[in-house]
Amino acid sequence: MPAFRGHTIHRARHHFGWNNAFEPVLVAKSGDTIRFECLDAGCGHYHPESTSADIASMPEGKVNPVTGPVFVEGAEPGDALKVTIREFVPSGFGWTAIIPGFGLLADQFDEPRLHLWHYDKAAREPALFSDFARVPLKPFAGTVGVAPAEPGTHSIIPPRHVGGNLDIRDLAEGTVLYLPVDVKGALFSIGDTHAAQGDGEVCGTAVESAMDAEVTVEVVKGATPASPRFTTPGPSSRHLDGLGYEVTTGVGPDLMRNARDAVSRMVDFLSRDRGICPEDAYMLCSVCGDLRISEIVDAPNWVVSFHFPRIVLT
Amino acid sequence: MPAFRGHTIHRARHHFGWNNAFEPVLVAKSGDTIRFECLDAGCGHYHPESTSADIASMPEGKVNPVTGPVFVEGAEPGDALKVTIREFVPSGFGWTAIIPGFGLLADQFDEPRLHLWHYDKAAREPALFSDFARVPLKPFAGTVGVAPAEPGTHSIIPPRHVGGNLDIRDLAEGTVLYLPVDVKGALFSIGDTHAAQGDGEVCGTAVESAMDAEVTVEVVKGATPASPRFTTPGPSSRHLDGLGYEVTTGVGPDLMRNARDAVSRMVDFLSRDRGICPEDAYMLCSVCGDLRISEIVDAPNWVVSFHFPRIVLT
Repeated sequence: MPAFRGHTIHRARHHFGWNNAFEPVLVAKSGDTIRFECLDAGCGHYHPESTSADIASMPEGKVNPVTGPVFVEGAEPGDALKVTIREFVPSGFGWTAIIPGFGLLADQFDEPRLHLWHYDKAAREPALFSDFARVPLKPFAGTVGVAPAEPGTHSIIPPRHVGGNLDIRDLAEGTVLYLPVDVKGALFSIGDTHAAQGDGEVCGTAVESAMDAEVTVEVVKGATPASPRFTTPGPSSRHLDGLGYEVTTGVGPDLMRNARDAVSRMVDFLSRDRGICPEDAYMLCSVCGDLRISEIVDAPNWVVSFHFPRIVLT
Repeated sequence: MPAFRGHTIHRARHHFGWNNAFEPVLVAKSGDTIRFECLDAGCGHYHPESTSADIASMPEGKVNPVTGPVFVEGAEPGDALKVTIREFVPSGFGWTAIIPGFGLLADQFDEPRLHLWHYDKAAREPALFSDFARVPLKPFAGTVGVAPAEPGTHSIIPPRHVGGNLDIRDLAEGTVLYLPVDVKGALFSIGDTHAAQGDGEVCGTAVESAMDAEVTVEVVKGATPASPRFTTPGPSSRHLDGLGYEVTTGVGPDLMRNARDAVSRMVDFLSRDRGICPEDAYMLCSVCGDLRISEIVDAPNWVVSFHFPRIVLT
């Protein structure tokens, strides 16, 4: 296999938040392939000896660094930036946390809790959670985006029409993502890499894990989408679905309330039926369970369902 | 294979709406297996010569009949009714409609439109949509439920904590569903069978198709769930996922708006990129595309994504 011949951007070249005045760390041509060294969402705060007590000392302004920005020649507002996600090189260390005040069930989980992962980075075998669960891995970038047109620094936390902290678990190897270009040069950045996550990222964190990401950037003239669009090269869930799912539901007129009910009922189910403590169940739901909208037309009640893969607990 | 030896309930024994005063059509023991002949959601209104003009003459009170109710001996409030879904015997004829005023994008699609399906009922080969799309089939029951405790007749359209018009595409062969029992005997009914549907049922209808459904009903004492819960025996999406997905997103603070944006952007994409007329694209989205909540924690913006299986258009 030939050595990688593109650009590499060191993890020190990261920024916090989005701002179209940030100086580019690289000027790339359309078609260039770039390797980004990505820090984890905790910016290296957690290490193999960390405990739940370390959550309180996370520096507030040092959350979710992204590596970049890259100025892509020829990119103008109205174009699409086509991002082909080629490879992730994971670090083998990761963390998942319940952070007070954050997450879908923040009202039910108010104590900090940290879980550390040590996973096989070469074979990508399922990662062990304590001694009772094995979580299949599928690395992806939680944050992928370009600078918004609006001036000033914008928080990294909410995703926007130009992407950002999308936390879409399908932005994995082989996926081709189209981002709207809002400013000249696009100003592309990437980070917040995850070794595994379910749809929803319900506890607020995934298997947060530093890794390198290799992507190709291309300008597609005049093809700006209204919000990020992508194509996956194959199945989304085959690493999870072999033994089917345990599924809970939320039924009612509010999708957010339904989602909370469905996840809360899964935590209850895993606690009662499998003897998993609620905090562990909640974190496992976040790293491998999926929130789906089963029906959204039978007014006034919609059905949100939460799907927990059975393979994880065998 | 031995002949079916359980009870069969004729399709004439159906009802409209839910009411715990409806007379049972059968008294079953816990553990009995029952074959229900199910009418389609249009109660037989559509036939192979129907056209879009026939949508207006759908009789208002004859929507979504369900076969039953079955009184299950020993079922009391506080118990769960365990429903093992054993088999569907499809009819081979189905319909999908855009019904004015109904569906996720009702504001964008105000003209009635009917599509008829003739599918292979034995081999369950993917069903042809015009000459450009082939939809993999996975029959299931859109409406499965028991009578609510509250007296009176309740509309069949909205699903409730006791089930009903759940339209969950995973309620297919092999799934084991647990329903809360609200009244003595549970009063179980089933109908609204679909040959295929995506998560969301976004245009408001699926591949609506009469079929027989064989289920086993069992009482599980004291195990009532807060809302329907189920276990699937294997993969949910393997019939769809082989070639990956085209995915659009909606990003913002309101899940309903995000869902509308994601589906509307997929209709736009299929129209522009594949030359499919918007009405056909919308109906195809309903019968095979999936609405998922990719993240629901990065306040104040959530990401809803819509996944269209590429295998359908090859």
